[in-house]
Amino acid sequence: MSKKNIFYAQSGGATAVINSSACGVIETARKCSEVGTVYAGRNGIIGALREELIDTSHESPEAIAALHHTPASAFGSCRYKLKKMEQDDSEYRRLIDVFAAHEIAYFFYNGGGDSQDTAFKVSQLGEKMGYPLTCIGIPKTIDNDLSFTDNCPGFGSVAKYIAISIYEAALDVVCMSATSTKVFILEVMGRHAGWIAASAGLAAKQQGDAPHIILFPEIPFDSETFLKKVDDTVKQHDHCVIAVSEGVRHADGRFVHESGLTDAFGHEQLGGVAPVLARFIKSKLGYKNHWAVADYLQRAARHVASQTDVDQAYALGKAAVEYALNGENNVMLTIERENGSKYSWKIGTAALSKVANTESKIPRDYITEDGFGITEKCRQYLAPLIYGEAYPPYKDGLPQYVRLKNILKEKILNTRFEGL
Amino acid sequence: MSKKNIFYAQSGGATAVINSSACGVIETARKCSEVGTVYAGRNGIIGALREELIDTSHESPEAIAALHHTPASAFGSCRYKLKKMEQDDSEYRRLIDVFAAHEIAYFFYNGGGDSQDTAFKVSQLGEKMGYPLTCIGIPKTIDNDLSFTDNCPGFGSVAKYIAISIYEAALDVVCMSATSTKVFILEVMGRHAGWIAASAGLAAKQQGDAPHIILFPEIPFDSETFLKKVDDTVKQHDHCVIAVSEGVRHADGRFVHESGLTDAFGHEQLGGVAPVLARFIKSKLGYKNHWAVADYLQRAARHVASQTDVDQAYALGKAAVEYALNGENNVMLTIERENGSKYSWKIGTAALSKVANTESKIPRDYITEDGFGITEKCRQYLAPLIYGEAYPPYKDGLPQYVRLKNILKEKILNTRFEGL
Repeated sequence: MSKKNIFYAQSGGATAVINSSACGVIETARKCSEVGTVYAGRNGIIGALREELIDTSHESPEAIAALHHTPASAFGSCRYKLKKMEQDDSEYRRLIDVFAAHEIAYFFYNGGGDSQDTAFKVSQLGEKMGYPLTCIGIPKTIDNDLSFTDNCPGFGSVAKYIAISIYEAALDVVCMSATSTKVFILEVMGRHAGWIAASAGLAAKQQGDAPHIILFPEIPFDSETFLKKVDDTVKQHDHCVIAVSEGVRHADGRFVHESGLTDAFGHEQLGGVAPVLARFIKSKLGYKNHWAVADYLQRAARHVASQTDVDQAYALGKAAVEYALNGENNVMLTIERENGSKYSWKIGTAALSKVANTESKIPRDYITEDGFGITEKCRQYLAPLIYGEAYPPYKDGLPQYVRLKNILKEKILNTRFEGL
Repeated sequence: MSKKNIFYAQSGGATAVINSSACGVIETARKCSEVGTVYAGRNGIIGALREELIDTSHESPEAIAALHHTPASAFGSCRYKLKKMEQDDSEYRRLIDVFAAHEIAYFFYNGGGDSQDTAFKVSQLGEKMGYPLTCIGIPKTIDNDLSFTDNCPGFGSVAKYIAISIYEAALDVVCMSATSTKVFILEVMGRHAGWIAASAGLAAKQQGDAPHIILFPEIPFDSETFLKKVDDTVKQHDHCVIAVSEGVRHADGRFVHESGLTDAFGHEQLGGVAPVLARFIKSKLGYKNHWAVADYLQRAARHVASQTDVDQAYALGKAAVEYALNGENNVMLTIERENGSKYSWKIGTAALSKVANTESKIPRDYITEDGFGITEKCRQYLAPLIYGEAYPPYKDGLPQYVRLKNILKEKILNTRFEGL
């Protein structure tokens, strides 16, 4: 009997450390005599549907090792939702054809909430259609909004980047505020969960330190309370530094960046929420301000990744192989925080059927009573996730990120999948 | 006779390495038996006018050494232009009163073009009003637009940050482009000079690499040519990464972010130029896009500073003391690039009377013929400025930046300056 192969794929938004998980999968699989080849899906599950399987055996050990310090998704990612099997099983039948043709017995899907939904659906190949497949979800999302895991790989590095960035920018504002900028606004990602915004709070070491205001998606935005807080802060400290989540909303559910403050100055707002707030503050309080939108810079910032985050991402990739060979199936791997005063963690599991499409937001007791800051409890949770600096190697002043050959395996099926 | 004191001050926008120059001044002065105390102006020249002199002798050697890795202006900065002496000499008479009271014989002013204008004006205290003052300008500006110096401290670190950031973000775009983002736009600083935008070009290592388009203030923006370039790039590479300078203008001089593309979609644009371009591309070509505005993040990013830049900033601070004691006067220190295949540099001087209010833009032969990229000549110039990684020390996942005590010297004059 020939050895069984692994299909591994990356899905959803990229992170600084998802390739560390890929590195963990491939390096571990190469050491296992039971495993044949690791095929990586070109652009996630789409690579399986299109029979575009990257043969990672063409990559040198050095190239695979370099994945450990290379951001983004080395095999391409996708945003693609499988249809429900009950409504249309053509995609599932196609997956069985492709997996059977290439002797795939292990399916590892690396992604966030939507991607774990895909992993769960694929697990039905075995559960409902009789194809012998071991299915493991490897968590990944900068939004840190997966349930059942203490934290999500990718988040720690964004948290570190945002905490450092707002700390540094705040030093700039402090030294300019006497004659220039009084207010600085940094817009961060995180969708409907305020975890990334909360991480800005790690920059504050003592009372009065920046950021003075954090706007969470979990707390409805009230323009009057906000303005008063800005004004009070400038009057007390001569400057005010704000971290705002892209997903912040009014009490009625409207996004602040879409429509919320339109009437305040009479014309439509475009773009992110940071420029909207900047103009609002300028028009109402007159303070000179600057704003930044970190966007992809934050989730690709491998140059200042968290060592904890990189370690966890790698360990989860490694564990996917080990757990699969141990007979674990239809689970997403998780990070479990252990008790004790010193931070430690181990790997656990959660049923894919439970994980898919859940969303973990910030508990209310992680946010201060006024809604503008993080509590000590939140700080205790966040702090260890940014520990350690995992620097990439450099050459001529730039990081040495790897570009894989990404050679596709020859197709076996002579059919083009029409569903895409 | 008591020892003569130094007045040192920081002016204009902050940088990641201006405190390295401060460190160079103070550490060198402390070793010189001819020098008394280094007094730092609180918020630049304003500190002299208000007789707010920070007594740096209260700071420990460790605190001063930590300036070497701390971004922004540790003594506060300002944007303040002295009046012309011929029109109103009250500020100059005040400076003489303050300097005489505190036995200041050396004036070191650390800043960009506007700040060197201040240094030049202060030099007139000696030249025209007979006060014995040695006046040295220490260059600093992220915009890299000072004449007479090969490059400006502060720029190399921004260049490194921007090159790394767009390199990392581009990896993100590449892996998402199959089903999501096709175009990414990063807005950078630099005012009327395209040096920072040009530094994004360092990220491209081979044909087809990001950034595919750089928009310089030196090249008039033409919306049709731009759109065609974006469309061609997406058609060829399936994605397009753009670096845009905040100062990019239409041929008639209007800033693109202000008004340029208003008519294209019929309503007023707010905020930076990146969201304006993003919406323009979306409306005309339909490509999904993301945009980032780095703003203060780029100029405060000490966490990924260029070692070359840090070294030069320190050396210029050190040289200010040494040159002053050697009798050099009324000059700005400069960086001179030496000939040879390996990058090397030395310190030179330029007369303050010549330096003030000049502006060095990118030569046309540093920009490709189509106006959207950098030439090999430009790359040769920029590359060494980002060499080396000067990491700050970390604790608990965050950089250990110093906060000085900044204790003011007791005032001697009993007069409040009314001009401010």
